[in-house]
Amino acid sequence: MTQTQPKSDFRQWLASNNVAIQQRLQQAMQQFAGPDVPARLRAAMEHALLGGGKCVRPALVLLGCEAVGGDLEAAWPAAVAVEMIHAYSLVHDDLPCMDDDLLRRGRPTVHAAFDEATAVLAGDALQTLAFEVIAQQSDARLAMAQSRLLSHAAGPAGMVGGQMLDMELEGKGRRASLAEVEQVHLGKTAALLATSLLLGAEVKAASAAWRKYAFAVGRLFQATDDLLDATGTTEELGKTAGKDEAAEKATLVAVLGLEGARDYAHQLAGIARRAVDESPHGLRRTELRSLPDFLLDRCH
Amino acid sequence: MTQTQPKSDFRQWLASNNVAIQQRLQQAMQQFAGPDVPARLRAAMEHALLGGGKCVRPALVLLGCEAVGGDLEAAWPAAVAVEMIHAYSLVHDDLPCMDDDLLRRGRPTVHAAFDEATAVLAGDALQTLAFEVIAQQSDARLAMAQSRLLSHAAGPAGMVGGQMLDMELEGKGRRASLAEVEQVHLGKTAALLATSLLLGAEVKAASAAWRKYAFAVGRLFQATDDLLDATGTTEELGKTAGKDEAAEKATLVAVLGLEGARDYAHQLAGIARRAVDESPHGLRRTELRSLPDFLLDRCH
Repeated sequence: MTQTQPKSDFRQWLASNNVAIQQRLQQAMQQFAGPDVPARLRAAMEHALLGGGKCVRPALVLLGCEAVGGDLEAAWPAAVAVEMIHAYSLVHDDLPCMDDDLLRRGRPTVHAAFDEATAVLAGDALQTLAFEVIAQQSDARLAMAQSRLLSHAAGPAGMVGGQMLDMELEGKGRRASLAEVEQVHLGKTAALLATSLLLGAEVKAASAAWRKYAFAVGRLFQATDDLLDATGTTEELGKTAGKDEAAEKATLVAVLGLEGARDYAHQLAGIARRAVDESPHGLRRTELRSLPDFLLDRCH
Repeated sequence: MTQTQPKSDFRQWLASNNVAIQQRLQQAMQQFAGPDVPARLRAAMEHALLGGGKCVRPALVLLGCEAVGGDLEAAWPAAVAVEMIHAYSLVHDDLPCMDDDLLRRGRPTVHAAFDEATAVLAGDALQTLAFEVIAQQSDARLAMAQSRLLSHAAGPAGMVGGQMLDMELEGKGRRASLAEVEQVHLGKTAALLATSLLLGAEVKAASAAWRKYAFAVGRLFQATDDLLDATGTTEELGKTAGKDEAAEKATLVAVLGLEGARDYAHQLAGIARRAVDESPHGLRRTELRSLPDFLLDRCH
């Protein structure tokens, strides 16, 4: 499938924004976690935040902003904040009592590079900082709307709740229902992914089609993640491969099989593409249309 | 000393608000962590938040609000949020990789009653929820100002940073400097305590004297906590006593000795009392003046 696709325009978008995103993340650390912060804590936060991630979520915030014709400058605090939330969640997910992973993006995880207590605190601090970055904006109405979206997506009814369900279903593997797997996906991944697109669009306004697009893309992200874990190598992933099956996680692949999971992912991509056509916003349509392909390409 | 003191008016304030605070915390859980939240996660969050704490911080938010003549109703979201932040910090502090405590307020800690992963997630979720509660207010300007105060106090330059320093100084005991101990106290306890008073006052406006009062009271809180750990019994404390000395923590008592730490605490109380007299706000002066005594009484 990948062979016949043109070069993904979302890939270009991601690449063309990466340097600026890395710079803004560094600046935010300097501004909000300066000399008042204990050096070891700051180092652990930086290890997590500035570890060369792909920064998909910030790129989605910026894309969402441009898609509705918003001012990009107004989207930066949310772009930084959403990556801080993502980084914190990875630090805590990797802890020995959670996924117990020593490798992330091909580097030691925070608790491996520092220690467990420092990892707990660095994750905690990155979450707090995300809300501080949002709150420091001059436009109070925008800041509040974004803080509301972000806290809801990241909290117990969103990301953290999804993580909890994921754990509870561990060991259930193929005996889980599709509805259970969908609930995990919606919480642990789609909520924050979709909200990234909504945060950027909040700068102006988001249509119903935009919400549909955001959630289809968010769910597709985790669907392709499940496929990737089942088919990729540790080298390709930058983290230990095949862990889902070993832990009998309730993934799409466990529930639907490899082909079933692929079909499912393609259906989500179709929903996302149609939502772009339905959207009243006319900008950045090429990038928006290519984003589902970019995600599908990860698990060809 | 306690024998000659009149009944503390802050004690009455705390007692008279406790039922309302417990109700608001319960309501907030129903409103913001409803049926969308996995049952086990919600149970762990409730175990931490509704475990019969004294709710000093919410009471301080309400007191701060009344002291500047603000509308009490406007202070409730901040009162709820600050207790959520406090509850989250206790859940994570009690983890095996941190203080490794099985007992809190005479009940099992969250990781003891549930499991370690659930405790990490419940703490994470309580932090997120605090910012959601703040962000759901209709007054965007107030919400943003409070979100800024709260995130700064709770984050790496505040509470989490203080926790990190505290850990780093463990084993140093009496070899720590007073400046180091003061930095720990300011971060891990005083920042959030003081900010509770500031959050309530934010409803109207806070004077310089008010800030002075808030930080003196916040520091006094941890000073008396150090004294309490050195002199109280496990039964009195509702948590394991004497842990500081056993772990060679860098406490006020370790650095200044018991009498030196008592003198230090009384000096802070004096600063707080004088700040009340300097304050342009005329309300609730009795409660404000008695709050330092209330704290000193804990470690008679």
